[in-house]
Amino acid sequence: MRILVVNPNSTASMTEKIGLAARRAARAAEIVAVNPPAGPPSIQGYHDAATCVPHMLAEIERHRGFDAVVIACFDDTGLDAARCAVETPVIGIGEAAFHMASMLSCKFSVVTTLRRSVPGVEANLARYGLALRCARVRASGVPVLELERDDPATIGRVEAEIARALQEDGAEAIVLGCSGMADLATRLGDKFGIPVLEGVSCATVLAESMAVLGLRTSKAGGYAAPGAA
Amino acid sequence: MRILVVNPNSTASMTEKIGLAARRAARAAEIVAVNPPAGPPSIQGYHDAATCVPHMLAEIERHRGFDAVVIACFDDTGLDAARCAVETPVIGIGEAAFHMASMLSCKFSVVTTLRRSVPGVEANLARYGLALRCARVRASGVPVLELERDDPATIGRVEAEIARALQEDGAEAIVLGCSGMADLATRLGDKFGIPVLEGVSCATVLAESMAVLGLRTSKAGGYAAPGAA
Amino acid sequence: MRILVVNPNSTASMTEKIGLAARRAARAAEIVAVNPPAGPPSIQGYHDAATCVPHMLAEIERHRGFDAVVIACFDDTGLDAARCAVETPVIGIGEAAFHMASMLSCKFSVVTTLRRSVPGVEANLARYGLALRCARVRASGVPVLELERDDPATIGRVEAEIARALQEDGAEAIVLGCSGMADLATRLGDKFGIPVLEGVSCATVLAESMAVLGLRTSKAGGYAAPGAA
Amino acid sequence: MRILVVNPNSTASMTEKIGLAARRAARAAEIVAVNPPAGPPSIQGYHDAATCVPHMLAEIERHRGFDAVVIACFDDTGLDAARCAVETPVIGIGEAAFHMASMLSCKFSVVTTLRRSVPGVEANLARYGLALRCARVRASGVPVLELERDDPATIGRVEAEIARALQEDGAEAIVLGCSGMADLATRLGDKFGIPVLEGVSCATVLAESMAVLGLRTSKAGGYAAPGAA
Amino acid sequence: MRILVVNPNSTASMTEKIGLAARRAARAAEIVAVNPPAGPPSIQGYHDAATCVPHMLAEIERHRGFDAVVIACFDDTGLDAARCAVETPVIGIGEAAFHMASMLSCKFSVVTTLRRSVPGVEANLARYGLALRCARVRASGVPVLELERDDPATIGRVEAEIARALQEDGAEAIVLGCSGMADLATRLGDKFGIPVLEGVSCATVLAESMAVLGLRTSKAGGYAAPGAA
Amino acid sequence: MRILVVNPNSTASMTEKIGLAARRAARAAEIVAVNPPAGPPSIQGYHDAATCVPHMLAEIERHRGFDAVVIACFDDTGLDAARCAVETPVIGIGEAAFHMASMLSCKFSVVTTLRRSVPGVEANLARYGLALRCARVRASGVPVLELERDDPATIGRVEAEIARALQEDGAEAIVLGCSGMADLATRLGDKFGIPVLEGVSCATVLAESMAVLGLRTSKAGGYAAPGAA
Repeated sequence: MRILVVNPNSTASMTEKIGLAARRAARAAEIVAVNPPAGPPSIQGYHDAATCVPHMLAEIERHRGFDAVVIACFDDTGLDAARCAVETPVIGIGEAAFHMASMLSCKFSVVTTLRRSVPGVEANLARYGLALRCARVRASGVPVLELERDDPATIGRVEAEIARALQEDGAEAIVLGCSGMADLATRLGDKFGIPVLEGVSCATVLAESMAVLGLRTSKAGGYAAPGAA
Repeated sequence: MRILVVNPNSTASMTEKIGLAARRAARAAEIVAVNPPAGPPSIQGYHDAATCVPHMLAEIERHRGFDAVVIACFDDTGLDAARCAVETPVIGIGEAAFHMASMLSCKFSVVTTLRRSVPGVEANLARYGLALRCARVRASGVPVLELERDDPATIGRVEAEIARALQEDGAEAIVLGCSGMADLATRLGDKFGIPVLEGVSCATVLAESMAVLGLRTSKAGGYAAPGAA
Repeated sequence: MRILVVNPNSTASMTEKIGLAARRAARAAEIVAVNPPAGPPSIQGYHDAATCVPHMLAEIERHRGFDAVVIACFDDTGLDAARCAVETPVIGIGEAAFHMASMLSCKFSVVTTLRRSVPGVEANLARYGLALRCARVRASGVPVLELERDDPATIGRVEAEIARALQEDGAEAIVLGCSGMADLATRLGDKFGIPVLEGVSCATVLAESMAVLGLRTSKAGGYAAPGAA
Repeated sequence: MRILVVNPNSTASMTEKIGLAARRAARAAEIVAVNPPAGPPSIQGYHDAATCVPHMLAEIERHRGFDAVVIACFDDTGLDAARCAVETPVIGIGEAAFHMASMLSCKFSVVTTLRRSVPGVEANLARYGLALRCARVRASGVPVLELERDDPATIGRVEAEIARALQEDGAEAIVLGCSGMADLATRLGDKFGIPVLEGVSCATVLAESMAVLGLRTSKAGGYAAPGAA
Repeated sequence: MRILVVNPNSTASMTEKIGLAARRAARAAEIVAVNPPAGPPSIQGYHDAATCVPHMLAEIERHRGFDAVVIACFDDTGLDAARCAVETPVIGIGEAAFHMASMLSCKFSVVTTLRRSVPGVEANLARYGLALRCARVRASGVPVLELERDDPATIGRVEAEIARALQEDGAEAIVLGCSGMADLATRLGDKFGIPVLEGVSCATVLAESMAVLGLRTSKAGGYAAPGAA
Repeated sequence: MRILVVNPNSTASMTEKIGLAARRAARAAEIVAVNPPAGPPSIQGYHDAATCVPHMLAEIERHRGFDAVVIACFDDTGLDAARCAVETPVIGIGEAAFHMASMLSCKFSVVTTLRRSVPGVEANLARYGLALRCARVRASGVPVLELERDDPATIGRVEAEIARALQEDGAEAIVLGCSGMADLATRLGDKFGIPVLEGVSCATVLAESMAVLGLRTSKAGGYAAPGAA
C-alpha cells in the first residue's frame, strides 16, 4: 500500500518533517511525501491557500496509483477539489485531528499559528460539524516558518496557549494547528498529561485505515470527477 | 465609480451576459466585466472552482484601482482569497442573492444547475448562516453551458423546479443558482408572482452601495493581505 | 425614487439625525424621515418596542407610495409587521448592518447601549442566521438619549467597548447598535482602522438598491397582507 | 391564587372557550379570561399580532395583582413585552405546548391554521431552541375563526394533517397550533393514540406551577421594567 | 394523585432531602421518594450514572401505579430508558429546571458541582435544544456529598460562582446543578434578586401538571415499551 | 496489540459475526470479541441499551490490559461510561461509521432497523456534530435478530431503503445502522456504486490507529475515572 502525502506549500524542509511524521504513524504503508515546486512557501490565510491548490492538484495528478492521499496543511487546503480528482480516500490533516480529538475527549481546543488563520479553521470546524466539540481556536502568534527553527521561545508560546486552553476553555485535549508542529505533539502530550494531536499522523493512519477497508471517495454527488455529468 | 465584475470561468459569452446584467443593475458605476483567458469554460463542482481561482486572482491583480469587485460565479469561487487581495469590498453573487432574499421573504429556495453543485451551495449557505433561511437547494439538471442556448425546454426544467419549491418547500422567494440564469429572473418573477433573485444584479448593487458608503474589507483578521503578519 | 425612513420612537431630534445619515447615504433617492407623534421617546427593550409598533405602522400607512421603507431602530422593531403592510422592500437598520458586516469581515461584534437591549439583539441575530458571524453583543452602558448630547465621555465608553471587542472577541468589524450612533461610524472606523458600520446608511443603500432592481417583499407566505387568505 | 388569561384578539367567543379550557386545566387557581375590547378579531400573521399587542398590554395593566399571566395566542404574541410589564411569570400557549411536548416525545409536529402562520411559529421554535425537537410545522388550511363553528369538515382537515405528520415526519406527538383548537385535543389524542397537546391547558398549569413555587420573571436583563436602567 | 420521585443514587439522606423539596412543591399529589438499595452513593460523571440506571429502573418497576415519575438527579440519568418503562410522564430534574428557566429569563447559567460533570450537562442542554438559552455551565468545585453537610464555606463557593455568572455571562437566572442544592434555591434567589431554580421542585410541579392534564409519554417512537415492535 | 470488541447484547452468534468483521478489518491487532453472559439479546431502543450497560462495563472490567476497546452496538451504548472506565481509546461503531462517512462524501444517510431506533441515532448524530452531514436516518423495518437469518427478503428491504436514500435524500454514502448488517456492506457498496459503511470495521481500524499513535482517552474532564475528583 502506498500513501501520497502532499504538502501544498513549496517548502521542502517542511515536506521532509511531514514525511517523517507520516512514516512514524503508518502501519505498513509506503509514504511518498511531495510538495509542488512552485507556490507560496507557507500557507497563512485564504490567499496563500487558494494559490497553492492548482499546484497541489497537479502534484496529485502527477502521482497516480496511490491508495490514499493526505493533504498536509492544517487548513485542509483544496480538500474538496482533491476529492474530485481521485477515487481513493483523501484526508486532510485538520479534519483528521478534529475527528480523532472528538473521540478522545468531550471537547478540545485548537492552538494554531497566527490570528489571521483562526477564521479559516473555525469555518472548517463549522462545516465538518465539529465546531460543537471545539471549545476555542487559539492563535499562538507564532508564524509557520518560525516553527522550522525549533526555538525554545517559540515552543514556550505554544505551551502558554495550551495552558490557557485547559484553564479557560475547559479543553480536555489539544489539536496543534499547523503541520510544522508535527514533532511537538508527543512532548506536549506528556508535559500536560492530556491528548495532544497533530494532524499528519492522524490523517496518515486514517487514510491507511480507509484504504485497508477498501473504502473510496463517493462519486455520487459533490465529489464527482470534473467533467462528469 | 468603477466596479470590476469577474467571471471566474473562461467563457466570454457568459461574461458578456453577466456584464449586461451588471450594467442594468448599476446606479451610476462603470462596469468592467472580465474573465481569465485560461481555465475551465464553466464551473461545475469543487475541482473546476479551485482551478479557476488563481486565474481569477491574476485578473483582479491586473485590474487595480476599482472601487469594488464582484465575483460572478454562484458558488462564490475564491471569495475569501479575493478579499485578501484587495482593500475594497468584494461581493460574491451567491452570497448577495442569499442575503437579499432573506430580507424579502421568510424563506427561499435555490434552483441551481446539476446535482453535483448542490453540496457546495449548501456549504456556502451554512457558512454564511443563511442555511436557516433557505428551505432547500434544488438541482434542475440543466448544465451551465446549456443555459447559454436559451432553449425553451431548458427554461421549462427551471420553471418546474420553481413550482416544486413553492409547493413542497414553502419557499416564498427563489434564488437562481447560476450566473447563466441572470436574464431569466424578471421573467420568472413575473410568471410566479414572487421575488426571483439572480446574483449578478444583487451583487452589483451591493458592491456599489458599499463603495458609496466608503466601506472596505476588514484587514484585521482572516482577510489580511497575503504576507502581512 | 422615494424612501420612507421611519424612526419608531417619538424623538424628533433623533429623526433629524437619522434623516441626515440616510440622505448622506442615498445615491439618488429622496429621503423622507418621519416619526410617530406619540409613543416612547426611545426604545430600550421589548416593552418600548411593542408599544411603538402600531404608531409606526400608522405612520407607514399615512405615507403610501414610497419605493422602499427603512425602519430606523436597531432592534428592527416591527419589521415583520411592516413587511405585511406594504409591497415594497422594508429594511431594518439592524439587519442591514449585520448583513453588510458579514460581507466585509469574517466576524464582527456589536456595541449597543444598555445591557437590557442585548438579548433582543442576540435574538435577532439568531433569527437572521447571522449569530454565526457575530462574535459578541456588547453593552456600552450608554442610554439612547444620552447619545444625543454628543458628550466625549459617552463616546469614550463606546470606544472602550470597541477596543475590548477587537482584543477579546477577535472581531474584525464593529456594528454600532443604536440609530443614535449614526454620526460616529466614520470617525470610529478611521480611529480603529476597521469597518465600523451603522445601520441607517446600510439600510438606506440596501433599500434603494432593492427598489432599483424592482425587488418587492414576497406576499406568498409570512408577509401576506393582513386579511389575505 | 389568580391567573389572568389574556386572549390578545377581540373575539369574545374565543375568550370564553379559552377560559373554559384554562379552568378545566387549573388545579386550584381562579381563572380570569379577558380580551381587549378593540383590535383584530383573530391573529393571522405578523401584522395582526403587532396590532394586538398594545391593547393586550393595556388589558394586563388593567388587571394588576394576578399571580401569573397566560397569553392565549399560539404565536405567543407580545410575550417579551408582557414579561417586561409584570413581575409574575408570563407564559405563552405556544411555548408551553412546545416545552411539554418535548418532555413527552422524542419529536413532535405542529398542526396550525394557515400557511401564512407557519413562518412565525417556526421562528418561535428556533428562538426557544425547540426547533430541534419539532419535526415539522404544518398548515391545515383552516382559518382561525372557522374553528369556532365546529364543522366536521374542518376537523377532518386537522385530522388529515395529523395523520400525515405521523406517517411522513416521524412525529410522536402533535401540538395543535391555535387556541381555537383547545377543545379538540383530548378527542384527537384518543383517536390517534399519541399525546395531542393544546397550549391553553399547558400554559395554565405551567403558570400555576411557577406561581406555586414563588418563581418570578427575571428583571436582571431583557425583561427589566420599561424605564428601568 | 401519586408521584414517584426516584433518587438514582443510594444515599438515603439525599432521598430524604429530595422528598422534602418535592412535597413542598406539590400541589396535592402524594410524594413517594425512593432510592435503589444498591449502586453508587452519588452520581459524578458518566460511569456513576450508567451504573445507577438498572437499579433505578428496577425501583420504578417495583413502584407501579404512580401517576408520574420524577428522576431526581441533575444529569437526568436514565431518563429515556425510564420513559420506555412506563406510560405516565417521566420528568428529569435537569430538564425541568432548564425548561422553566427559559420561560423566566432570556438566558440562564447553570452552577453545578465538579468540572467533570460539566460536559454531561452541556450535552443534555444541547439535546433538549436549550443550549441556546444557557449562557454557561459552571463548576463550583463542590462535590455532591459535601453539599449534605451544609457548610457555609461550601455555600460560599456556590455563591461566588453565581456572582460570576451574573457579571461575566449576562445570566438573568441561575439553575442549581445538583439535587443536593435543593434547599438553597430560595435563599440564593432572595440574596441575588433573580430566579434561582432547583430541579426537584420544578420537576415535581411539571409532573403533577402533566398528570392533571392526562398527558402521557408517547409510545409511538423512541419511547416504545421494551419488546414492542 | 490487542483490541477488545464488546458486543453489549448477550447474543453469541452476533458476537461471532462481529468478531469476524473486526478481524477482517484489523491490520495486525489481535481481536477478542466478547459479550456479557446476561442482558437483553438485542438492543432496540433506550431501555435495552440502559440495561446492557453495567453488564458491558463488567465485561470491560474483566478484560483489562487491552490497547483499545470497540463497543459493537450501533447506538454507541454506554460509550461515555466506558471511556471513564479505561485509559485507552474507546470507539463506538456508530460514531466510527459517521466520522468516516463524513470524510468520504458530502452527505450520507443511515439505514437502521426499526423506527423506534431512529431517535437515538439522531440524538447521537446531533451530539457528535455530524447531524449536519447526515441527510436522513431511515428505518428499514427489519428487527435486529431477523438480520441473523440472512433472508433475501430482509436484504431486499434494506436495499429498497438505500435506493430511496440516494433518490430522495441526495445521500452520497450509506451507513448501515446495526452491527448485524456488518457482512452486507461490501455487497451493497458494490451493488449501488457508492461507499456503504458498517461500523464494526470502521471502529476497529480507528481503534487500532489510535493505539498505534499512542493516543489515549482524556482524563481531564468528562471521562475522568469514577471516584476521581
